[in-house]
Amino acid sequence: MTTPRLPFKKTVSELAGIVGGRAEGDPSYLLTGVAGLHEAGAQDVSFFGNPRYSEAAVNSGAGCLLLPENGRALKFRSPNRIFVDDPQRAFGRILDLIDEARPKPAAGVSPRAWVHPQARVAAAASVGDFAVVEEGASVEEGASVGAQCYVGRNARVGKDSRLYPGVVLREDCLVGERAIVHSGTVIGADGFGFSTDKKTGRHRKIPQLGNVVVEDDVEIGANVTIDRATIGSTVIGAGTKIDNLVQIGHNVKTGRDCLLVAQSGVSGSSHLGSRVILAGQAGIAGHLKLGDGVIVMAQSGVMSDVEKGNAVFGSPARPRMEAMKLQALYGRLPELFDALKALKEKLGFSR
Amino acid sequence: MTTPRLPFKKTVSELAGIVGGRAEGDPSYLLTGVAGLHEAGAQDVSFFGNPRYSEAAVNSGAGCLLLPENGRALKFRSPNRIFVDDPQRAFGRILDLIDEARPKPAAGVSPRAWVHPQARVAAAASVGDFAVVEEGASVEEGASVGAQCYVGRNARVGKDSRLYPGVVLREDCLVGERAIVHSGTVIGADGFGFSTDKKTGRHRKIPQLGNVVVEDDVEIGANVTIDRATIGSTVIGAGTKIDNLVQIGHNVKTGRDCLLVAQSGVSGSSHLGSRVILAGQAGIAGHLKLGDGVIVMAQSGVMSDVEKGNAVFGSPARPRMEAMKLQALYGRLPELFDALKALKEKLGFSR
Amino acid sequence: MTTPRLPFKKTVSELAGIVGGRAEGDPSYLLTGVAGLHEAGAQDVSFFGNPRYSEAAVNSGAGCLLLPENGRALKFRSPNRIFVDDPQRAFGRILDLIDEARPKPAAGVSPRAWVHPQARVAAAASVGDFAVVEEGASVEEGASVGAQCYVGRNARVGKDSRLYPGVVLREDCLVGERAIVHSGTVIGADGFGFSTDKKTGRHRKIPQLGNVVVEDDVEIGANVTIDRATIGSTVIGAGTKIDNLVQIGHNVKTGRDCLLVAQSGVSGSSHLGSRVILAGQAGIAGHLKLGDGVIVMAQSGVMSDVEKGNAVFGSPARPRMEAMKLQALYGRLPELFDALKALKEKLGFSR
Repeated sequence: MTTPRLPFKKTVSELAGIVGGRAEGDPSYLLTGVAGLHEAGAQDVSFFGNPRYSEAAVNSGAGCLLLPENGRALKFRSPNRIFVDDPQRAFGRILDLIDEARPKPAAGVSPRAWVHPQARVAAAASVGDFAVVEEGASVEEGASVGAQCYVGRNARVGKDSRLYPGVVLREDCLVGERAIVHSGTVIGADGFGFSTDKKTGRHRKIPQLGNVVVEDDVEIGANVTIDRATIGSTVIGAGTKIDNLVQIGHNVKTGRDCLLVAQSGVSGSSHLGSRVILAGQAGIAGHLKLGDGVIVMAQSGVMSDVEKGNAVFGSPARPRMEAMKLQALYGRLPELFDALKALKEKLGFSR
Repeated sequence: MTTPRLPFKKTVSELAGIVGGRAEGDPSYLLTGVAGLHEAGAQDVSFFGNPRYSEAAVNSGAGCLLLPENGRALKFRSPNRIFVDDPQRAFGRILDLIDEARPKPAAGVSPRAWVHPQARVAAAASVGDFAVVEEGASVEEGASVGAQCYVGRNARVGKDSRLYPGVVLREDCLVGERAIVHSGTVIGADGFGFSTDKKTGRHRKIPQLGNVVVEDDVEIGANVTIDRATIGSTVIGAGTKIDNLVQIGHNVKTGRDCLLVAQSGVSGSSHLGSRVILAGQAGIAGHLKLGDGVIVMAQSGVMSDVEKGNAVFGSPARPRMEAMKLQALYGRLPELFDALKALKEKLGFSR
Repeated sequence: MTTPRLPFKKTVSELAGIVGGRAEGDPSYLLTGVAGLHEAGAQDVSFFGNPRYSEAAVNSGAGCLLLPENGRALKFRSPNRIFVDDPQRAFGRILDLIDEARPKPAAGVSPRAWVHPQARVAAAASVGDFAVVEEGASVEEGASVGAQCYVGRNARVGKDSRLYPGVVLREDCLVGERAIVHSGTVIGADGFGFSTDKKTGRHRKIPQLGNVVVEDDVEIGANVTIDRATIGSTVIGAGTKIDNLVQIGHNVKTGRDCLLVAQSGVSGSSHLGSRVILAGQAGIAGHLKLGDGVIVMAQSGVMSDVEKGNAVFGSPARPRMEAMKLQALYGRLPELFDALKALKEKLGFSR
């Protein structure tokens, strides 16, 4: 079973122009594909961005490599090289070219979709097979609602946004412009709110009557859950990117340009500043404040506020440098026990 | 982008009657909305339940505040106040009023759904667009199967239960009365059961032939997975509330009124008593017993039985008080290393 | 509410023949059901595989028990016993018999599905209600695409593979033969790839143009997410079994016969050897190599390469034996603090 071939055709000098790089080798050399360092052949362009892969880059059979300036010292097998400031970004530009040439959902409502007569679908929008768009909902210009999506009452999918197949956007929830939501994601399920009778131990549901607001340029991965607010709004700030299987509780607010990595979770009513990073499987307790630029390392559990610019680690999380030092000392516990024992013996105190 | 306005119209004295509270201020003052402490304006009612928000409560512009009796000492900006025993519960009652006035799924089977001729859908039940109800399945009175849901062969959705859009209820699985299941949840996928050939390392599937029984008054969040039993039943006890992205393995049983917070998981064949609480991202190994009222703190990993009434913390989990003490001592490891070093120096043993 | 009864009818001697075991008791004794040790009655066969359940086995009311040879010493209430080398495997064979008799999806395309005229569905394949099969996709012989599934452009579902209701298989992604994919799983959503502008902090999407290759005999649980590669393929090796809510990042590759337990996650570009086991909620950072047979214990966080055959534990993960020893010493921290204090007092150094 194989990887799809990506249609593409550029000379080395054309590529250098596109990525704003300095080419070495044959400027008229023709490239017809894009591939990873290991898989690339004589007609493929590949890129070397992570120092971890310098051996693979040196030995790559690629017809052309995108490289950082500090890669000049190495001796590459590849006959053509283009030096750039940020190879990953440069490679991204090449992928953009290929991506732009790919088929996009055609405008129009599938005859197999159900769009309520009182819903609004812009002429230049698309609604896929077996999708449902309920009363009062709107799908704006250039937006695409994938097959089997559900867009609830009075929900909105903003201009040029895209819901991949199988997204659920519950009633009253709003998605801004140029947002992307991947399959299986549920936006606007009820928050986890109950009041517990102290005598009987039974839990009584507190209705969840707010909504979710996903601002412009947000991307949300697959099978994510973002709960609607009890009252008011759960807000995902503009430009924030959310990975797969992330949980966002009711009344959470994130700032702009946050990165929430896979399987992380934010409990109800916590507020994240801008450019906050939650690494994989990190968890944030409820009702906390994380300042701008906070970094929470993988699997960490945050149980108190974190001031802006700080990094934290561990479960429970501590400031990163402290947590790192403690982890190192933790690894030296055997030494500590031994030292104490030796000391007692030397002093004749052993038992 | 904004929050939906919640339709509502009550005077301060009417509200006090509804929540059973003691009003201060102008009994005829009219309230027309509900909002959070920060967002509330002169016509909104808001509530102060969590001491963490006392400053926000004092400064809130709300036209009326619901407060606990011990809040009397504070000086609030709000012109009207209603004192109650449990402000969260009182606020829940107000939200109930609003919720009751909201549109509910109309009874009837959508012409775009597929209901097998040998399935039973009660007259007062509803089945949404592109939903599937297979042979032998039943949807009982007042139950609602949302758009794009799948109800498998011989499955049952009990009286007044609600499946939100996109739920999968596999064959033979049973949901009791007044249960709520949110979008994307899968009830009854095969348990993770394989026997591994020691020589080849290959895994052979063990058929998963049991079912899942979700008892009355259970609520299950979005994108949850509850696996069917190998044989017999996986059981979610009455009144239990499950948050988003929770995993329940095959043959698990929970007692009544448990709370399983987001991203927690219970491995196969473990049994939870009643009123057990698993905090966020907690994990329970397989074949364990957790007694009534056990509390597992966030991100903890339980690897052995826990007696009723105990709280545990950490990965691996230990009794909460012990775990807390160990965490505190862990934070003092640098001090310990320093003290030992100083001692050795004092005694002339350094190096 | 009850468990479905499993149709079945065999004598003790027939059963012994099927599982290759040595029977004790009445060879003509008739069994008509299969049940767990606790639930089994006089007409049921049950099995005793896990030593943890020896008491339940001894007291089981089952008409016949499958037992390991080393169970001969115990005195069982059950009138018939069949001794086998691997009771779990033997029980699996009985469940296979029942499973084979169950209804399978009938071949054919539902009149309520949408299959693009340029898609290929084999005559002996099935496509369920409201499923979508896009242009260029193929569903091979004996394969079954469940209700409400989405099979994207040029995707392939191999011979005898089964997608349960509500699976999303994005464009160009390939599933091999005899694979099983449970409901709600998303194969081929975009990897989490962005380049961040250092000045503005804004994240720019890197198109994800590769695919996912799921090899033969793989089983994937419910609500799993497997991201497509940036370029090239994300690969799930033959015979690998993935539990619910697992996250697989872009360009990950796993070897053969791995077991990835529920809620575990593998970050982008990490490569797992064959027969690797990730226990529940374990996490693997990006760009790592785990050798053949590596075991990562529950909730562990792997941040560096692991050589073949090793087991690791903890967050961050360390070699298992070291991690176990450190955990034990961690539990003795109070003792250590006390000992140091006592020593200082003895020496008159207190304070």
